[in-house]
Amino acid sequence: MIVIMKSGSPEAEIARLSQEFSSSWGLTSQKIVGKHKVVIGLVGNTATLDPLQLQELSPWIEQVLRVEKPFKQVSRAFHHGEASEVVVPTPNGPVHFGENHPLVVVAGPCSVENEEMIVETARRVKAAGAKFLRGGAYKPRTSPYAFQGHGESALGLLAAAREATGLGIITELMDAADLEKLAEVADIIQIGARNMQNFSLLKKVGAQNKPILLKRGMAATIEEWLMAAEYLLAAGNPNVILCERGIRTFDQQYSRNTLDLSVIPVLRSLTHLPIMIDPSHGTGKAEYVPSMAMAAIAAGTDSLMIEVHPNPAKALSDGPQSLTPERFDCLMQELSIIGKAMNRWPQPVPVLV
Amino acid sequence: MIVIMKSGSPEAEIARLSQEFSSSWGLTSQKIVGKHKVVIGLVGNTATLDPLQLQELSPWIEQVLRVEKPFKQVSRAFHHGEASEVVVPTPNGPVHFGENHPLVVVAGPCSVENEEMIVETARRVKAAGAKFLRGGAYKPRTSPYAFQGHGESALGLLAAAREATGLGIITELMDAADLEKLAEVADIIQIGARNMQNFSLLKKVGAQNKPILLKRGMAATIEEWLMAAEYLLAAGNPNVILCERGIRTFDQQYSRNTLDLSVIPVLRSLTHLPIMIDPSHGTGKAEYVPSMAMAAIAAGTDSLMIEVHPNPAKALSDGPQSLTPERFDCLMQELSIIGKAMNRWPQPVPVLV
Amino acid sequence: MIVIMKSGSPEAEIARLSQEFSSSWGLTSQKIVGKHKVVIGLVGNTATLDPLQLQELSPWIEQVLRVEKPFKQVSRAFHHGEASEVVVPTPNGPVHFGENHPLVVVAGPCSVENEEMIVETARRVKAAGAKFLRGGAYKPRTSPYAFQGHGESALGLLAAAREATGLGIITELMDAADLEKLAEVADIIQIGARNMQNFSLLKKVGAQNKPILLKRGMAATIEEWLMAAEYLLAAGNPNVILCERGIRTFDQQYSRNTLDLSVIPVLRSLTHLPIMIDPSHGTGKAEYVPSMAMAAIAAGTDSLMIEVHPNPAKALSDGPQSLTPERFDCLMQELSIIGKAMNRWPQPVPVLV
Amino acid sequence: MIVIMKSGSPEAEIARLSQEFSSSWGLTSQKIVGKHKVVIGLVGNTATLDPLQLQELSPWIEQVLRVEKPFKQVSRAFHHGEASEVVVPTPNGPVHFGENHPLVVVAGPCSVENEEMIVETARRVKAAGAKFLRGGAYKPRTSPYAFQGHGESALGLLAAAREATGLGIITELMDAADLEKLAEVADIIQIGARNMQNFSLLKKVGAQNKPILLKRGMAATIEEWLMAAEYLLAAGNPNVILCERGIRTFDQQYSRNTLDLSVIPVLRSLTHLPIMIDPSHGTGKAEYVPSMAMAAIAAGTDSLMIEVHPNPAKALSDGPQSLTPERFDCLMQELSIIGKAMNRWPQPVPVLV
Repeated sequence: MIVIMKSGSPEAEIARLSQEFSSSWGLTSQKIVGKHKVVIGLVGNTATLDPLQLQELSPWIEQVLRVEKPFKQVSRAFHHGEASEVVVPTPNGPVHFGENHPLVVVAGPCSVENEEMIVETARRVKAAGAKFLRGGAYKPRTSPYAFQGHGESALGLLAAAREATGLGIITELMDAADLEKLAEVADIIQIGARNMQNFSLLKKVGAQNKPILLKRGMAATIEEWLMAAEYLLAAGNPNVILCERGIRTFDQQYSRNTLDLSVIPVLRSLTHLPIMIDPSHGTGKAEYVPSMAMAAIAAGTDSLMIEVHPNPAKALSDGPQSLTPERFDCLMQELSIIGKAMNRWPQPVPVLV
Repeated sequence: MIVIMKSGSPEAEIARLSQEFSSSWGLTSQKIVGKHKVVIGLVGNTATLDPLQLQELSPWIEQVLRVEKPFKQVSRAFHHGEASEVVVPTPNGPVHFGENHPLVVVAGPCSVENEEMIVETARRVKAAGAKFLRGGAYKPRTSPYAFQGHGESALGLLAAAREATGLGIITELMDAADLEKLAEVADIIQIGARNMQNFSLLKKVGAQNKPILLKRGMAATIEEWLMAAEYLLAAGNPNVILCERGIRTFDQQYSRNTLDLSVIPVLRSLTHLPIMIDPSHGTGKAEYVPSMAMAAIAAGTDSLMIEVHPNPAKALSDGPQSLTPERFDCLMQELSIIGKAMNRWPQPVPVLV
Repeated sequence: MIVIMKSGSPEAEIARLSQEFSSSWGLTSQKIVGKHKVVIGLVGNTATLDPLQLQELSPWIEQVLRVEKPFKQVSRAFHHGEASEVVVPTPNGPVHFGENHPLVVVAGPCSVENEEMIVETARRVKAAGAKFLRGGAYKPRTSPYAFQGHGESALGLLAAAREATGLGIITELMDAADLEKLAEVADIIQIGARNMQNFSLLKKVGAQNKPILLKRGMAATIEEWLMAAEYLLAAGNPNVILCERGIRTFDQQYSRNTLDLSVIPVLRSLTHLPIMIDPSHGTGKAEYVPSMAMAAIAAGTDSLMIEVHPNPAKALSDGPQSLTPERFDCLMQELSIIGKAMNRWPQPVPVLV
Repeated sequence: MIVIMKSGSPEAEIARLSQEFSSSWGLTSQKIVGKHKVVIGLVGNTATLDPLQLQELSPWIEQVLRVEKPFKQVSRAFHHGEASEVVVPTPNGPVHFGENHPLVVVAGPCSVENEEMIVETARRVKAAGAKFLRGGAYKPRTSPYAFQGHGESALGLLAAAREATGLGIITELMDAADLEKLAEVADIIQIGARNMQNFSLLKKVGAQNKPILLKRGMAATIEEWLMAAEYLLAAGNPNVILCERGIRTFDQQYSRNTLDLSVIPVLRSLTHLPIMIDPSHGTGKAEYVPSMAMAAIAAGTDSLMIEVHPNPAKALSDGPQSLTPERFDCLMQELSIIGKAMNRWPQPVPVLV
């Protein structure tokens, strides 16, 4: 921690502060006297100190800068510089998420509509190579008058799709009161973008055992996102996957959000946790999904989440951000080319005769 | 609702869509045939329709535009173009928030630290003219390792301050599980910026009777903010105050957030709900608070929330965004000049002898 | 300047760097050895050093932080902590812009349309109390097909309005090739938001004598804005006024830009230059202009720029961001209330009989 | 163009407007009467109309929406739905930029420092497969005190590098006064991000013959960027390449800008112009460049611009965003894997014996 004093700070005040850093926090002060300003370096256990809290100590403090990162358990250094893996048991066997494993594809509809629809979608995305089915039972909606998801009954439909296909299930938790029954069905519990800093929810979901998918908030900095993940690890659950889903910027005319693919190399250098990219929410338009999915693989993502929605009765339908199963089949072929070039494509399982 | 078709859309598809709008939603279609594009106007009950849902009906749809606003109960029109008022009972008597009432000042520390501190602060801010004491029992903190508030015990201290001074209490609810005990102490329940779109929490707090202060999310559009308020009204609670506390922009070097004072005239034209401005979080620095508080009054705010923190043991202390009681006294004098010029300053209560 | 080394930086590399700082830039290095990291404080003449340039010196450097501000002549300290004033001669006498002078109001249309219109507008805004007429001869337009201003002929019309009313003229320079003829008419030369970092233009306009109004770029940080002003002062022209006109954020639905009034206290603490606020471009809607103009005065602005457009033939017309002369008259009455409360309203000049 | 009237608009006003649309602009009005609002569709030649201009016609107009795109010559439709190509003659032969051509790599230092440095860099990047050398003679710098480029003398050094290697030259034009001498050396003239809306410069550079690289402004919407390109085509120069170089968002801590790769599919659908991606400025850190360059190819970019800086005297040097020639060699190997998978990698030229 570095404390920059304002020009003209009295010597006595600097001495008082050094004394206080020592007596209140056991920190050693080292002083650098510049032409106009004095800078105090604090040596000791500063990781849990809040720069704003230190700044309150004196009106002569201009700025307090953190030299160490504020996160610990999620940091790459905490895992000795290595990537960690999140292993998720599914009926079809364990699936590994991580830098040293093949790309994992998650696919499915925005929300669970009915049994036929969800089971059929599950079959189609499984056939195309997905390992997980996504689908919302509880849906965060901007409007109180919009469809809020079928709730508990949709959980039953997800269970049916899981049984029919053996796919793992990813579904969003919005309310801690639903945690127990949701965890019975979900293989991975999703915390949505709007709840990324719902710290009460993070503490509760971090205290249970199912792996967690933590979506980045719409205007969350990378550091805030990692700190939200730190809440989960600090609560006891190390099985966390980070999912980028587009951030909010000044331009929303063509692409609804701005998919921030540079998080891939940035997160790789900062954390050991596996990375997922969601190009469907990231762009908001089906036609932009394929190229962003390709780019995500080339940039090194560990997994992809792609919205797929069947619409047998309305053959012309496209949906603003969902792919049809046919387009998804086709996309998986395209992705396999990049996936193989990157050595991240799953090997076909040999069929025993 | 207006549906813009892509150039070259087949006539048959436009006919099919018109048929579908009619049969599925009972909407009448009116067609405008332009040089390159056809535009379909939908007439009927479109308020609860989701533009994205309509867009899924055909790949030939370029865009769906909402002509009506998506919010209803919070809209100014719903209140016949008039401002509403929120009347909050406090031990010192009812306090009225609204466009036709004097400015209400809320003041107090970020978090409740101990009894002496909170009672003393309450006394000081009351003497200066505040009607409510703010103070956090549960604190949303970016880091799991930072002080999370004293929780339930702090609620007791707020009750003590309320009893000692007669001020109303505003404190933040982060977890629905704490609602009951928090509502015993709070006269106004605050929903913080990070929970503005925690829809589960909104539904629950909207279903109880205490007035609610809804802070704007850090990157929430005005429309999303009003829709969050709509959740509260739709759940049954009409006593909602909207609080602007700074938004996140590209520049965070000097002012931590960008206080968006233009929400005042914008909200005034859109909604009947009372408005509060929080220049302390809005700027993040005590020295910028006074001029932003002055500006907020001149722009027409109904109330102000200002952080005040006593620090008797550390006389030099200033705090990055909290005012000392002395500076707050002084600020109230300055505010009274603008408040009187705007005819929004409370009349001194005549003292009976 | 502070150099933070990565964890595990070799001692030899730190020694090599200290040697290089000394031999290449004559800087003394002071080392703080923390638990994990070493921090080097550089003492000496660091004002013109570029942190990025220093960072290139070693791959072991994690970050280089500037302790001193990068601007000099525009800094408040450069003017001994006092506000400066910009005195602009006009036919009606000198007008003073600055913290210790009454508020100066600039008004007029977006662009100069014809002589009758501009002279009539000048008369109306003068009668209401404006000291300067604004009006564009050269207009920056997003589309090459949109009206680009009447150019040189419009300059003649501005000269006519100046002669008819004695008002000072503010008009925008887009091309250094037009500087000479524009400077013949303009009393203040405006550099628009889109050219705030057109450094070639800044150097040329800074090298002439007319006062300059420097509008903030749509996504310019306060520091970048001050550095653009520094270009002007470094080129020799100290008569610079800074004009905030709204920044670009994620929400553009109701207010076209976000008027950042917190620049007023921030600039006050950083620079001695006078401040102008433009609520017309800042909000993009006439109905939001009055409350933002009131707020700007309460926050301490030195001047206001307000769009006024007469439209006698179309009596119903309002214009999205322009006020009619009638509304402007009325606004000036409202502003005088706040202006007087702030002691910033011009005294009426006694009329000699 | 669609005009949405406010609730309660008088019939007479709607009739007056329709009359005015017809008499002033020759537009036919078609009316849709909804439950609360009337919508007017304008049919005719609306492409060059400004929505804001229309909105000024009546205070009863709530909003004016453009149905047609505001750009014409840059639109994909203008080129019959096909991609265009920009062919640039270089000493080594013509280089083709476009969707149906192999990826073109541009590399070189931020600024031209001296002859040895620039010629050596040119040799190295040519050997690795680059077709163009980039290097700044005139440098836009935030600070007037920072190195502004060697100017005209640097142009001579670029000419020397061109002669020595046969590479094409890309260098930035900041001032129209330098156009002639810069065009003697440059094979492609770069307009930088800060000048994207310097319309005077766009008109002048659009009126000459050399191909133009138009960088996206830091906070420019895609539509503004395309309109800036429209200025160039409208001025007569069809050889324009669009370069994304990172946009400004709320998070600048790890990646300096946010590289917006979703522009690739968006631009592909909107325009026929070739696309370049600059991951060096886009991220601001050399270590993030490789994965973003890979991603750009997978997303379908037509070319890449990568900063390479040799530093033979300081072997440890890395530079915050520049690659060493060695790292660039290595990167080109990595890129070839993705480039080949995408069928966008240049075939080796057969050597004739």
